[in-house]
Amino acid sequence: MAIDPQDALAVGVDFGTLSGRAVVVRVRDGAELGSAVHDYRHGVVDRVLPATGRALPPEWALQVPSDYIDVLRAAIPAAIAAAGVDPSHVIGVGTDFTACTMVPTTADGTPLCELPEFVREPHAYVKLWRHHAAQGQADRINELARNRKEPWLPRYGGLISSEWEFAKGLQLLEEAPEVYTAMEHWVEAADWIIWRLTGTYVRNACTAGYKGIRQDGAYPTPEFLRELHPGFERFVTDKLDHEIGALGDRAGGLSAEAAAWTGLPEGIAVAVGNVDAHVTAPAANAVEPGQMVAIMGTSTCHVLSGADLREVPGMCGVVDGGIIPGLWGYEAGQSGVGDIFGWFVEHNVPADYQRRAAERGISVHDLLTELAAQQEIGEHGLVALDWHSGNRSVLVDHELSGLVVGQTLATRAEDTYRALFEATAFGTKTIVDAFVASGVPVTELIVAGGLLRNELLMRIYADVTGLPLSVIGSEQGPALGSAIHAAVAAGAYTDIRAAAAAMGSVRRGVYQPIPANVEAYQALYADYVELHDHFGRGGDDVMHRLKARKRAATEGKS
Amino acid sequence: MAIDPQDALAVGVDFGTLSGRAVVVRVRDGAELGSAVHDYRHGVVDRVLPATGRALPPEWALQVPSDYIDVLRAAIPAAIAAAGVDPSHVIGVGTDFTACTMVPTTADGTPLCELPEFVREPHAYVKLWRHHAAQGQADRINELARNRKEPWLPRYGGLISSEWEFAKGLQLLEEAPEVYTAMEHWVEAADWIIWRLTGTYVRNACTAGYKGIRQDGAYPTPEFLRELHPGFERFVTDKLDHEIGALGDRAGGLSAEAAAWTGLPEGIAVAVGNVDAHVTAPAANAVEPGQMVAIMGTSTCHVLSGADLREVPGMCGVVDGGIIPGLWGYEAGQSGVGDIFGWFVEHNVPADYQRRAAERGISVHDLLTELAAQQEIGEHGLVALDWHSGNRSVLVDHELSGLVVGQTLATRAEDTYRALFEATAFGTKTIVDAFVASGVPVTELIVAGGLLRNELLMRIYADVTGLPLSVIGSEQGPALGSAIHAAVAAGAYTDIRAAAAAMGSVRRGVYQPIPANVEAYQALYADYVELHDHFGRGGDDVMHRLKARKRAATEGKS
Repeated sequence: MAIDPQDALAVGVDFGTLSGRAVVVRVRDGAELGSAVHDYRHGVVDRVLPATGRALPPEWALQVPSDYIDVLRAAIPAAIAAAGVDPSHVIGVGTDFTACTMVPTTADGTPLCELPEFVREPHAYVKLWRHHAAQGQADRINELARNRKEPWLPRYGGLISSEWEFAKGLQLLEEAPEVYTAMEHWVEAADWIIWRLTGTYVRNACTAGYKGIRQDGAYPTPEFLRELHPGFERFVTDKLDHEIGALGDRAGGLSAEAAAWTGLPEGIAVAVGNVDAHVTAPAANAVEPGQMVAIMGTSTCHVLSGADLREVPGMCGVVDGGIIPGLWGYEAGQSGVGDIFGWFVEHNVPADYQRRAAERGISVHDLLTELAAQQEIGEHGLVALDWHSGNRSVLVDHELSGLVVGQTLATRAEDTYRALFEATAFGTKTIVDAFVASGVPVTELIVAGGLLRNELLMRIYADVTGLPLSVIGSEQGPALGSAIHAAVAAGAYTDIRAAAAAMGSVRRGVYQPIPANVEAYQALYADYVELHDHFGRGGDDVMHRLKARKRAATEGKS
Repeated sequence: MAIDPQDALAVGVDFGTLSGRAVVVRVRDGAELGSAVHDYRHGVVDRVLPATGRALPPEWALQVPSDYIDVLRAAIPAAIAAAGVDPSHVIGVGTDFTACTMVPTTADGTPLCELPEFVREPHAYVKLWRHHAAQGQADRINELARNRKEPWLPRYGGLISSEWEFAKGLQLLEEAPEVYTAMEHWVEAADWIIWRLTGTYVRNACTAGYKGIRQDGAYPTPEFLRELHPGFERFVTDKLDHEIGALGDRAGGLSAEAAAWTGLPEGIAVAVGNVDAHVTAPAANAVEPGQMVAIMGTSTCHVLSGADLREVPGMCGVVDGGIIPGLWGYEAGQSGVGDIFGWFVEHNVPADYQRRAAERGISVHDLLTELAAQQEIGEHGLVALDWHSGNRSVLVDHELSGLVVGQTLATRAEDTYRALFEATAFGTKTIVDAFVASGVPVTELIVAGGLLRNELLMRIYADVTGLPLSVIGSEQGPALGSAIHAAVAAGAYTDIRAAAAAMGSVRRGVYQPIPANVEAYQALYADYVELHDHFGRGGDDVMHRLKARKRAATEGKS
């Protein structure tokens, strides 16, 4: 059946932490015609395993894979209906997923938790990205890699995360060897969903690189793995390694089963899997070197393409084709951003502000923003460190913590709120500076994510970084990005760059740095850097001591 | 008329910032039989001068001297009535005052503001201790004294305050020369009230030393004063110098006029004037070297006697006979204590705590204290610097500010509240350590003032300092102390030490340091010291930069 290119549609599906969202997008111009959200029935399983009613240990976070299939069955048809379009016009499907979220499966991709013998076994379930119970394994991986001077370690800013494939895999081996033995594949959920859609397992280049330590076509060696644990020697060959698909490639055709779930035509193109942050870059038409996309929500993820390979201290990872095939994809991150603002409003703002906000029918965030916006730069007399959840980039130290300096009896909530805004902007500038200093140019900052709605925050980011600040035009960036990949996989465009130009959406240069503000912030940023280095690079290790003491005091109590 | 010593009474009057309090005390045992408070009709004049309706400049704080006379007329008779005693049994009157609070007068002690020609002139009024508009003059005094290596400067920890006699006097000369010329005496309110009671002007040794730079019987030289300002050369000889009275001495007899105001017998002893903090020492029976009295309210004042003269870095002053004749009186201070806790509760605690406190009929302070008391030492993972109002002792730097380090998304209000309690305790330990290191022993900490009611705070102070902690037994420490001086002036006791033993009131060693807690706090104190020295001694001057930037931003706005 030939579809008039004017009518061709693509479906993008964004699998988040609590729900999945499908968006129907017109291929020729990226118009978003309809969308639908479906909540995961089991949400995040982090307290009690439903099958047993038994409590999970601290730091665990699981999911139930059938919830993802329900998104395909519910959200895609609902989005088609909301768009009021003919599903036969859909030429491709693309998806993005949280990462690193891992599914242990049989040879045919069946999740182990769906086997009767493993339904009561927590380790047989999906380990969500924010499962943090493999920290001990991650620590050993990092120590051994440092000692052995493994060449891949600098590609990850010097630190492999407990969230990633190897740490979670080693935990599985050590804590549930029978599950590990039964597991035929250790699959990124980003790829597992493609496997379900097409019947074909293709490992996407993005997560294989960022989360799977695949560099220059290779993984950590059997010698390295054996030294970690004798039983881990063949982890790569037996459980992990698989055919790699480039981003935007066609992973396969939509299977009959998946066509029945979704109501989409059998055989249409399904794109290689992807990750929510990275897929947002083409959605914002940020496909050229120098265009840094900051996805700002509870935390911030920075993605950026570069023409050359550089090892940037403290980045999360650099991967060949990790965002756009043919370019090096760089990723960095700030552990806490929006969640710091949320914590501040919930736990540090007196009743009076809630009353005033309620009287005016606005949120406390809006009220504080309005008050903070009336201030001159430096008027609050404060500077803060934004490390309430530790620091990923560029210090890579989860034991760091928050700091505020400059408080007086005249300090009010809006003062500290603004100082926290600025602290996160300084954190982004630190990352930008690290890239630039390492030879990776950054010429534009493009913001996606919920925080872009705060104009004061955007103004501060432009003035602090001194970069022109663009904002993504779509409110559904990841799903739009997935639809762009679907269009490329379907052959509607020659590559992601061309598709992004036609379908991506960005309001360019909305916030231009104001020279006087840029200058004023340079002085304040110098203060931030001095604190950053003093507390983050060993001048005063007090944050580590406080954390250790807190742990000792809490343990002594229980 | 002979009074049976069993029946003899003394009246103490404490002149505070907003009101005066009279207490009737039994001379033989210090029993407080009755008291009364009288609010100053004009309170603190810091916005508009009543006589003109014109706004005062920032940082000004005046008072109206007739308000003090009203206290004599109202509070003393009311206290006698409340005690239900015969006023003819009163053998002496003693007073204490805020300091440095200054009255410009004619030759007979008439305040210049009571002259028709000066009633509309702000500079003719009383300058309250917290009048801070002479900072420019203080800065010049300090710079010149440092350059000239004036021997008296180390007696004040290296800094003369803008609150004291010379800075305020120089401001008067420079801003209102006609008032300066008309002024015959520049009188401490502590002495002015004695002049009113007796008809005799006696300058008390305490304020002459602490506030008037009188050391070893001498004042700053005419050469020094001339260099400050040619017209200031004869300031000491023309305006300031006068007969000195030792503490506990009889300044004179109660005049007929004052007897009529107060209803007390004409001719009874009136003690030499005194200061609220210093007079509290005998009230707490703290008259021996090593007994440090901390008067803990919005700020903390530390007074301590020592056998020998030592120059302690950062103290407020050391004065021969400044607390007890025959001993060197040391004074130190923390600029902010209770006001920091008050600021925290008012501006940093969310509504939920107010609701919970209200439900239980307790204050938010009580609720936070209860929650904080359940914590192990170090459990909150925080450490703070208590410099929200700057730091008097030992850094002598009003440009410093507050700091909190260690915040996470799990930090709650009770965590920070406890950290602020601890920060002020660390501040006191810093002062104790400075005295000990300079050869002035400190063996006991005796707490007076409103904060002694908080048992958690007292427990923390004992454990942080490692000193046995006593608390004053009277809720009206300064007025009791003034009554003790009255009894000595009347000859009922040979000296202050004997009177304090009989009339003072202290619960000794109520809080003994708990060894395990002392040890736990040593580690946390080491963290405090590292922050203290880094931010307070030039490691990072960020607090100064923040203050300067705040001033510039605020000025740029107005």
